[in-house]
Amino acid sequence: MTTIDPDRRSCPAPAAETERVLLGHGSGGRLSADLLAAAITCELGEPGPLEDAALVGRDLVVSTDGFVVTPRFFPGGDIGSLAVHGTVNDLAMRGARPIALTLACILEEGLPQAELRAITASVAAAASGCGVRVVTGDTKVVSHGAADGCYLTTTGIGELLPGAVPSASGGKPGDVVLLSGPIGAHGTAILSVREGLEFESGIRSDSRPLHGLVAAMIETGGPDVHALRDPTRGGLASALNELAEASDVTVEIAEADIPVPAPVAAACELLGLDPLHVANEGCLVAFVAPGSADAILAAMHGHPAGRDARAIGFLRPSGGPAPVVARTLVGSTRIVDLLIGEQLPRIC
Amino acid sequence: MTTIDPDRRSCPAPAAETERVLLGHGSGGRLSADLLAAAITCELGEPGPLEDAALVGRDLVVSTDGFVVTPRFFPGGDIGSLAVHGTVNDLAMRGARPIALTLACILEEGLPQAELRAITASVAAAASGCGVRVVTGDTKVVSHGAADGCYLTTTGIGELLPGAVPSASGGKPGDVVLLSGPIGAHGTAILSVREGLEFESGIRSDSRPLHGLVAAMIETGGPDVHALRDPTRGGLASALNELAEASDVTVEIAEADIPVPAPVAAACELLGLDPLHVANEGCLVAFVAPGSADAILAAMHGHPAGRDARAIGFLRPSGGPAPVVARTLVGSTRIVDLLIGEQLPRIC
Repeated sequence: MTTIDPDRRSCPAPAAETERVLLGHGSGGRLSADLLAAAITCELGEPGPLEDAALVGRDLVVSTDGFVVTPRFFPGGDIGSLAVHGTVNDLAMRGARPIALTLACILEEGLPQAELRAITASVAAAASGCGVRVVTGDTKVVSHGAADGCYLTTTGIGELLPGAVPSASGGKPGDVVLLSGPIGAHGTAILSVREGLEFESGIRSDSRPLHGLVAAMIETGGPDVHALRDPTRGGLASALNELAEASDVTVEIAEADIPVPAPVAAACELLGLDPLHVANEGCLVAFVAPGSADAILAAMHGHPAGRDARAIGFLRPSGGPAPVVARTLVGSTRIVDLLIGEQLPRIC
Repeated sequence: MTTIDPDRRSCPAPAAETERVLLGHGSGGRLSADLLAAAITCELGEPGPLEDAALVGRDLVVSTDGFVVTPRFFPGGDIGSLAVHGTVNDLAMRGARPIALTLACILEEGLPQAELRAITASVAAAASGCGVRVVTGDTKVVSHGAADGCYLTTTGIGELLPGAVPSASGGKPGDVVLLSGPIGAHGTAILSVREGLEFESGIRSDSRPLHGLVAAMIETGGPDVHALRDPTRGGLASALNELAEASDVTVEIAEADIPVPAPVAAACELLGLDPLHVANEGCLVAFVAPGSADAILAAMHGHPAGRDARAIGFLRPSGGPAPVVARTLVGSTRIVDLLIGEQLPRIC
């Protein structure tokens, strides 16, 4: 039981220029972190950021996620499959396999029922593909103009895998940084549709469940899998910054080792995006003990979602210019920062 | 694990006139049931309606609810406290005490941060009052005009109380119908604010947690507490109809025994509402074995939320004109039907 901190009212005041909620507060980057700290976790009486998924009791993991992606249907998925995969993946990043999902829908008056059915069917298909069932739900309808079609919130309940201990704060100096596959597909797929480029680019979202991949990693590495994160909103850069801060380490990655598919690289160049900041929905980054890194990597290669896994860097003690730095292609070092504000609103 | 029913595509087609989602689909009445059956549960491959809260494993209960109430602050509560109480109560109706909550926010660009803080603080205070903590959450921001200020989705995880077996389908002919207190306050409080009548009416929402009351009932009645439901959207009439259908019984209530506070009755008359259809957020209806009814009622009287509890009717075998009938004040019998469409949009 939490009692409210009597000093709660001393939560930091918002700066004058951000006294209203901005689109950038939903970016997954620095502004998001600031809003959460000032208006959510502090008011809830929490000392620090909440993890994407929380441990309840000894072996239960819970995660919740809202989905407001636009367009609702995109190459490689839709809001329904994305909601299931996103929530299953948040559980997986805490080392849990999913055992139940809930689904809350906020619908705008006027949404075609056929579209709602297609979305629900996609939820069902994705859940079935993850071996989990939607056990309960809720549906609200708001008047025309008070929402944009359909928003979903999924909550996942998971059971901790035997031997699993991954936590955002689990990284240790010397750990190897593993990335399960190429980055940038989800964000560029969504943006390609919005910009009318989907046919030229041919990019499909990488949306997919990662609990099977995580199970293979944990089976091989057990407690040597120190930290896991799926780089969704804010991209790989934000995920690495969050893990680095929570683990109190410096992450050093090599730009040359980050796989960016050619069409994604081209789309990013065209649209002025840094692939490190673009959202993903089907890959993960891991901090693992150096002694087990090769074995864990081999286990990842044996799973379809980890076929292209590779080591992209390592952890050093904290200190230095920034929590995350990258060795560039020309041999210099650059800071890999959180995105400040909004790059791609409503990407998930 | 659910596999998708290959006949899923044979889900009933929506009637032509309702091929879009209507406000009435969010009423909690007949249209809601139709939309859920056609577009949600059928597509999910479920044989029937999902319960408000689901049993997971042996003793875990999960419930999820979206909150879109307008105005966000009203006499007796706000969207934050309402979200916590609503979710805690859904768990309680399955006989569970809350052990964790999650909170997902969908925010509209431009929402004053001070308002978000007040809402979050209210969530925290309500959760603390229920002895439970918000363990994880999510925040999305959509552009101005793509939501109306702030929507919350709360999910609750609960632990089944020892001896608790209540289920919507648990009612048996001969059971006594108990009501924990007066009805109609929440819906009329909200509507009074919208109509600018709040000062004249003085009505406050009855929003409050009911898990303590349920614990007292279960402690006394154990498995004799057959079914519980909090009559929220759609009011007492919808709650009784849903329980009657799920339990395959006829509910007979006496109008004279339904407590409607005088200000609520006056507001309902002014606004053209039937108190039986008005939403509540702080009372419950129970089907209990006749042999334990007096003892359970006495236990309810010992709890602040059940001080005015009373027996309002009994269950008969199904059959007859309708699932729920009321003996009127003049001695005749009338059908108590589900609301068809929308009475009060965005009441919770």
